[in-house]
Amino acid sequence: MATQGQVITCKAAVAWEPNKPLVIEDVQVAPPQAGEVRVKVLYTALCHTDAYTWSGKDPEGLFPCVLGHEAAGIVESVGEGVTEVQPGDHVIPCYQAECRECKFCKSGKTNLCGKVRSATGVGVMMNDRKSRFSINGKPIYHFMGTSTFSQYTVVHDVSVAKIDPAAPLEKVCLLGCGVPTGLGAVWNTAKVEPGSIVAVFGLGTVGLAVAEGAKAAGASRIIGIDIDSKKFDRGTALSNLSKIVNYELLGIATKNFGVTEFINPKEHEQPIQQVIVDLTDGGVDYSFECIGNVSVMRAALECCHKGWGTSVIVGVAASGQEISTRPFQLVTGRVWKGTAFGGFKSRSQVPSLVDKYLKKEIKVDEYITHSMTLADINKAFDLMHDGDCLRVVLDMFV
Amino acid sequence: MATQGQVITCKAAVAWEPNKPLVIEDVQVAPPQAGEVRVKVLYTALCHTDAYTWSGKDPEGLFPCVLGHEAAGIVESVGEGVTEVQPGDHVIPCYQAECRECKFCKSGKTNLCGKVRSATGVGVMMNDRKSRFSINGKPIYHFMGTSTFSQYTVVHDVSVAKIDPAAPLEKVCLLGCGVPTGLGAVWNTAKVEPGSIVAVFGLGTVGLAVAEGAKAAGASRIIGIDIDSKKFDRGTALSNLSKIVNYELLGIATKNFGVTEFINPKEHEQPIQQVIVDLTDGGVDYSFECIGNVSVMRAALECCHKGWGTSVIVGVAASGQEISTRPFQLVTGRVWKGTAFGGFKSRSQVPSLVDKYLKKEIKVDEYITHSMTLADINKAFDLMHDGDCLRVVLDMFV
Repeated sequence: MATQGQVITCKAAVAWEPNKPLVIEDVQVAPPQAGEVRVKVLYTALCHTDAYTWSGKDPEGLFPCVLGHEAAGIVESVGEGVTEVQPGDHVIPCYQAECRECKFCKSGKTNLCGKVRSATGVGVMMNDRKSRFSINGKPIYHFMGTSTFSQYTVVHDVSVAKIDPAAPLEKVCLLGCGVPTGLGAVWNTAKVEPGSIVAVFGLGTVGLAVAEGAKAAGASRIIGIDIDSKKFDRGTALSNLSKIVNYELLGIATKNFGVTEFINPKEHEQPIQQVIVDLTDGGVDYSFECIGNVSVMRAALECCHKGWGTSVIVGVAASGQEISTRPFQLVTGRVWKGTAFGGFKSRSQVPSLVDKYLKKEIKVDEYITHSMTLADINKAFDLMHDGDCLRVVLDMFV
Repeated sequence: MATQGQVITCKAAVAWEPNKPLVIEDVQVAPPQAGEVRVKVLYTALCHTDAYTWSGKDPEGLFPCVLGHEAAGIVESVGEGVTEVQPGDHVIPCYQAECRECKFCKSGKTNLCGKVRSATGVGVMMNDRKSRFSINGKPIYHFMGTSTFSQYTVVHDVSVAKIDPAAPLEKVCLLGCGVPTGLGAVWNTAKVEPGSIVAVFGLGTVGLAVAEGAKAAGASRIIGIDIDSKKFDRGTALSNLSKIVNYELLGIATKNFGVTEFINPKEHEQPIQQVIVDLTDGGVDYSFECIGNVSVMRAALECCHKGWGTSVIVGVAASGQEISTRPFQLVTGRVWKGTAFGGFKSRSQVPSLVDKYLKKEIKVDEYITHSMTLADINKAFDLMHDGDCLRVVLDMFV
């Protein structure tokens, strides 16, 4: 390719400072070094983790940076020693790497590869511990090892999954974060069995993916809990932004995804955990916290059935916050665990999730409520904060 | 038997008030009603749970009462409808019942039978919600459904395990609580695999039983943590109470039970979780809190390896205390759980533990550091509080 080995100048949304609007800039993207892959990002979605770091509340956040971690694209070029992908391959960048060599990967017990964490955690690449992004010579940090709010990005070869080129990238970009996180929390972390009673706290994309996963696993009851009753009502009026592709979707989504009953904690005087225990003859078999609120995490644990109920923390809490409960909750048989990227091994399993989508075994389209462009990224975040959308997908080259 | 159907007057240690010395009294023990069993208690051991309720810190504690829950004896008589035991059977009273009929027993997921909990929790028997103990007509409450600090006690038939009469009751009384709690935490709750690295916080009877269970499970390293270095030193001078049967045992015990290395947190400036993480290349595979201290529970969780480390709460914390940690600890793969009676189903599994002891597959004798009499019960508790013993066994009829 003409660009191979060259610096590429392209558009990217740069977060110059915490909590200030992202700015579309011309950034220089250096060629991939050994073990690196440069990816042309065609579509990216927005996730609350981007917003969290952008807000400045993430003590590990570094600025200026290029955010974004849920995307799909095509390999533009590869660095020395990269064998598993080549230019032209369709890929999904993976913020959770998978090297297949480290203690974590070899354990057979976790997806939390540690290979490149020391670099991705501080916004640089392993090879020279520098960024591949710059503007007129000034380095711009990477984010989560992915930085997909750029038309081109450089990732480690252990952080990119090669997928079936038949898959529509404007859809399967969602398989880079939220949907697998929810499905995997059910299938890999909790291992929900047929007939189980499940509670899902927070009915955003991740929570609905939990519901979908629980339905697929044969759960008998899936109780959705959210303080925003809009999420339960069919045909909720959405905002008037252009390019809303599924304007009625949000309202009908929850039941489509498998939720069998709704509870709004604001409509109850008792603590929500007590409401759920009363509704379920002692509590649920599995609960999932998909918000990132430590009080809700406690409620999610305490609504579990004595003896066996398992609660999985899926949401990411703000730095410094702590969960708490009485130890009696655990001594009497409840289990508290958590999940990152749903326990999926990224390079090995994201391609099979894409295949499942192509075989219509999992939903993806249904989570996309809005399609917008990179230029509209600040409006897209506004939409996300309003809770009026599930996933917003940005077309990076319009 | 001559006593069948009659009230039996016998000796019992009565806790008249919180935190006041127990008083050896002549108590009247009523005959067993339907579904009840009257047991002649030959030997009972002391446990910290007795001391906790006695102290008055247990909000569910009721006075006056007969404490005690780790014992062995012989069935004196049975009430109507009792079929699984008969007079003369050797038995171990079980504070954790097993009815084989309730939702819990049938779940296959827990040992926490709920059948008689509503009565045993308030110190009475299910049949008439009254006590079988009295002194000159004044009722004395039951405790944990066992009340073994009495020469005769009445228990529900779902709360008594029939054991091999060849087993020495002065030894196997320990299989009523502490030893199974530790072994089961490893075998049933954590399911430790060969090669695992294990941390045990608190080297009393339960902690040493955890070590023994971990050794039997093939753990490669068993790290014992205690702030009392006496527990590590051979030949610690014990107190001068009479009838010390194994005066050197405490010192040599820890290595006998499988502990491979010791850490005293007081000898380290860093938090103990960091000390352990550094010693183990990232943390232990399994940890067990056998103290009942919520700060130690946090340390036990946080010394676990990212990705898979599992921490089991075995100790019982004081009422109202809470555990806490950053949710990130769970999101990155650690699991927090707890256990009661080591997850063993009491009536089904205590007999097989007795058989294991008879086949020398598990230790029991080694946990008994002192043999005393019912009359000495207050001295025995003093000894326990000093930390100079493992288990004290009381001969009830000397």
